[in-house]
Amino acid sequence: MAHPHIEEQIRQLATLDCAGMYLDDFLLTWDHSDAEIAAVFKVAEILRAMRRENISPRLFASGLAVSLFRDNSTRTRFSFSSACNLLGLTVQDLDEGKSQLAHGETVRETANMVSFMAEVIGIRDDMYIGKGNSYMREVAASVEQGFRAGILEQRPTLVNLQCDIDHPTQSMADALHLIHHFGGLEKLKGKKIAMSWAYSPSYGKPLSVPQGVIGLMSRFGMEVVLAHPEGYGVMPEVAEVAEKNAASSGGSFRTTSSMAEAFADADIVYPKSWAPFQAMERRTALYGENDMAGIKALEKELLAQNSEYSAWECTEELMRQTREALYLHCLPADISGVSCRQGEVAATVFDRFRDPLYIQASYKPYIIAAMIFLARFSQPVESLSRLLTAGRQRIF
Amino acid sequence: MAHPHIEEQIRQLATLDCAGMYLDDFLLTWDHSDAEIAAVFKVAEILRAMRRENISPRLFASGLAVSLFRDNSTRTRFSFSSACNLLGLTVQDLDEGKSQLAHGETVRETANMVSFMAEVIGIRDDMYIGKGNSYMREVAASVEQGFRAGILEQRPTLVNLQCDIDHPTQSMADALHLIHHFGGLEKLKGKKIAMSWAYSPSYGKPLSVPQGVIGLMSRFGMEVVLAHPEGYGVMPEVAEVAEKNAASSGGSFRTTSSMAEAFADADIVYPKSWAPFQAMERRTALYGENDMAGIKALEKELLAQNSEYSAWECTEELMRQTREALYLHCLPADISGVSCRQGEVAATVFDRFRDPLYIQASYKPYIIAAMIFLARFSQPVESLSRLLTAGRQRIF
Amino acid sequence: MAHPHIEEQIRQLATLDCAGMYLDDFLLTWDHSDAEIAAVFKVAEILRAMRRENISPRLFASGLAVSLFRDNSTRTRFSFSSACNLLGLTVQDLDEGKSQLAHGETVRETANMVSFMAEVIGIRDDMYIGKGNSYMREVAASVEQGFRAGILEQRPTLVNLQCDIDHPTQSMADALHLIHHFGGLEKLKGKKIAMSWAYSPSYGKPLSVPQGVIGLMSRFGMEVVLAHPEGYGVMPEVAEVAEKNAASSGGSFRTTSSMAEAFADADIVYPKSWAPFQAMERRTALYGENDMAGIKALEKELLAQNSEYSAWECTEELMRQTREALYLHCLPADISGVSCRQGEVAATVFDRFRDPLYIQASYKPYIIAAMIFLARFSQPVESLSRLLTAGRQRIF
Repeated sequence: MAHPHIEEQIRQLATLDCAGMYLDDFLLTWDHSDAEIAAVFKVAEILRAMRRENISPRLFASGLAVSLFRDNSTRTRFSFSSACNLLGLTVQDLDEGKSQLAHGETVRETANMVSFMAEVIGIRDDMYIGKGNSYMREVAASVEQGFRAGILEQRPTLVNLQCDIDHPTQSMADALHLIHHFGGLEKLKGKKIAMSWAYSPSYGKPLSVPQGVIGLMSRFGMEVVLAHPEGYGVMPEVAEVAEKNAASSGGSFRTTSSMAEAFADADIVYPKSWAPFQAMERRTALYGENDMAGIKALEKELLAQNSEYSAWECTEELMRQTREALYLHCLPADISGVSCRQGEVAATVFDRFRDPLYIQASYKPYIIAAMIFLARFSQPVESLSRLLTAGRQRIF
Repeated sequence: MAHPHIEEQIRQLATLDCAGMYLDDFLLTWDHSDAEIAAVFKVAEILRAMRRENISPRLFASGLAVSLFRDNSTRTRFSFSSACNLLGLTVQDLDEGKSQLAHGETVRETANMVSFMAEVIGIRDDMYIGKGNSYMREVAASVEQGFRAGILEQRPTLVNLQCDIDHPTQSMADALHLIHHFGGLEKLKGKKIAMSWAYSPSYGKPLSVPQGVIGLMSRFGMEVVLAHPEGYGVMPEVAEVAEKNAASSGGSFRTTSSMAEAFADADIVYPKSWAPFQAMERRTALYGENDMAGIKALEKELLAQNSEYSAWECTEELMRQTREALYLHCLPADISGVSCRQGEVAATVFDRFRDPLYIQASYKPYIIAAMIFLARFSQPVESLSRLLTAGRQRIF
Repeated sequence: MAHPHIEEQIRQLATLDCAGMYLDDFLLTWDHSDAEIAAVFKVAEILRAMRRENISPRLFASGLAVSLFRDNSTRTRFSFSSACNLLGLTVQDLDEGKSQLAHGETVRETANMVSFMAEVIGIRDDMYIGKGNSYMREVAASVEQGFRAGILEQRPTLVNLQCDIDHPTQSMADALHLIHHFGGLEKLKGKKIAMSWAYSPSYGKPLSVPQGVIGLMSRFGMEVVLAHPEGYGVMPEVAEVAEKNAASSGGSFRTTSSMAEAFADADIVYPKSWAPFQAMERRTALYGENDMAGIKALEKELLAQNSEYSAWECTEELMRQTREALYLHCLPADISGVSCRQGEVAATVFDRFRDPLYIQASYKPYIIAAMIFLARFSQPVESLSRLLTAGRQRIF
């Protein structure tokens, strides 16, 4: 059976230099070159096409995928599970409740102990500023050391399933959605995206989504506008990444304190609540000191601060100021009158975009699978071609 | 290697019209035609025979099976796991504790988010009258909509692992046990089955077992007698199903308030405790109002009510009034003097039937696998024949 | 592709009589003959070599591995998962929280209900003296009975993942580490191993590790010295096993109350805390009586008793008295100044042996896989040879 469409995509992949991804981790999109980012999109498309045409991309007959979720998660858990399962890996949760991690065991030891047959380690650790990404790097260094010392027979790949800095599987899925919507990666050039803060009655939502979005979208030559009220700034180093990316991609990056200004003539809007970076730094310090009274007080302060900006809602009126913009959200959204009295988005806007939003989410399993694939196979083009030739069916 | 016995069963399957099951759900046995019910039995037998003869019915190289258990469960969990594993699907629990389901996320969203690579969704939700089955239908409608909108690349099949109305995997396993015991589906005609309430010191046991049993057994031309004390009636609509089935199958369905009358000359007895339907309706309303004092009071009232009927026990004396009846139970049973002071069944009766009871339970994984199989494969006869020809071994 | 190294190991396996392991359990190392123990090591090596040379030892296309952990565990959980995954089995946890086990269900019933498609049942139950191993034997008897009665189509194998008496997957992994370190099983003859109690600020650590070590190492002709303070004796029947083993293997077994004496000229040291056997018997009785005040009092008494022996630490000075001994630990260790103020081992000693300790742990998945393999395949040599010939790749 011929699969000309897939063959064509494999030929396109062959033009991208992604050799550096082999045996590497995926922690921040800006750790990777443009070609590598493009290769992830391409492989995600190929894997999706293979599955659709009933070709099984089950590359592993056995192998573990370790998952560590320090925060509750439905969609990321299922995306990771789906990706690993498609490739033939079995997820084994490292549950800190069940494990002895809390009993003084060092990260280095645990990382090695769970990795004897692990091909990948997926971690979600987004709660504390300055902690999540460092923890991932500590795990990565531990398994690297274990591999070099001959303890591990393979060096598992770390995949960042959301940290304090970036949420690469989310932003890459978002971008793949844009690529599909606008008809190609190159079509994103010049498009205006408004990554805007929005009001939510809850507090402490992670910064990794807006940071991931400005850190990634800025490299496609887009006009990236970050909008938020005073005091809701993101991590300065991520803003710098976005500026640098914009400069080299021929796009732009700027910040505004007006949602309306960000939405004006936007092609894409991404209104979403997050906590101020400085507040999260304070909260992290309070947790470090186990100062529960301080945390309570901070929570109260933040909710009061949020409520000053309850007008920051993605309304139909705001949407009319855009160029019939595509509405994005990482879900779940705080929908006014549905999941809360007043929230990030008007119910009619959300309803109109429900299907596209779900499609946006549907790319995540393939993005994760592509990240794993490119880190585990030294000759991605050859491996994919062989899969095509072998023609093993996913469903008998 | 020839497998004449399996080939013969596949030929029998070919005579049954089960085309309507393809891409459909399995929520209530009475949603399905007699031919479809017979096809489930037949496929269950074929899968069991294949496994026994070391032919692997692993039809999926990858794919998820989502499980959602709103109530604790050992046997159903393992039955679902076993069934999915046999077919090649990997179970991923949707744990409401772990997920964001409780945080205002809509059913529609979650159903789509977990289904990007799901072939089947198994749900157990039997606690509240009027809720479990509706919830399953809401999930089914959500994934149907997601599939039509191009969000999902396949439309996962819902399998009811026990709801407020029916427990189809249980009653079908029970029936397959009867088919084996009596030597064929057609041999059930004219047999008398006593589905009887029995005393238990606990309260609030689900109605889905007796309802499932009368709703299914009535279609095989059996004499179905439902026995319970005054006030322990089942859902009226299920009693109607049983009446209608009995009428068209040439059997009968009636209710009695005497356990002895039900047991007299019975070929099969199924003594089991359950809560009165009206009480469960009241409890559901109280939960809805979060009226904990009301729930406590209701519990006390129900236990007192139960204790008036402590004579409703499956004793040796009662068993002697039967035609050497086969004793059934969905397990675990409340065994007098073993698991409680006084319960549903005398210890000597239970002991005598332990092996058959365990065999009864052993059909459940195959029933579930058959339900999944018939919903996922449009040409079941061809698929099974190809499995036989391919001859892939389950154990190398 | 030729694999002369693996072929040679398979030839060596052929000289070992391990027919008795087929369909048997692995509960205590001393239930098994020397040839059987050697066969486990050999198969573990073969499986590791196959994985390294990208030959998939996936012998099962489907099948469940039931895991029951009555105690928290990271490393044993992952070892069991890894082993099962390598062979093609899917782990399904039997979680007593999730299951109905606590609700009066008998062991016999649950054992059968979870085993319809189970090839192996791994249990960790090390908390109460006199309970864990008996529980495993009860489960084994239950599935044996279920198999004979035609309830189960296969008789799952019990693997002891740690009980009150033995920790065979640990001691066997320890021994395989020694075999690698010293260059062969026969090289262990005459080596001195000091299995020594060591101080820990926690209490109630299981006896199964020292018992497993003396019960196993004594059969290799080693000089086995068990050192502990007065009152920290192990179970008398295990000491007897070690004596008997030593007598027949040409080694020795003795007990001393001096850590220094044990360490003197030792080739291997295994300093580790454990609770006195008699104290554990008292604790088990107190739990049986639900005497929480008694348990609290006992804990206080035991911690006070421990603190009298805080000098029992594996220091650099003690290490200098050995023959450049290899330091062993089952991990996690209580490291002085790292995981506690004062503990089992000096930080510099631990640091020096970190890599070997992790390598020691790396054998456990292969040991477990070998135990499962030898219990499931009647012709192990033929099965392994066929795997080699088939040459199916683990990674495509």
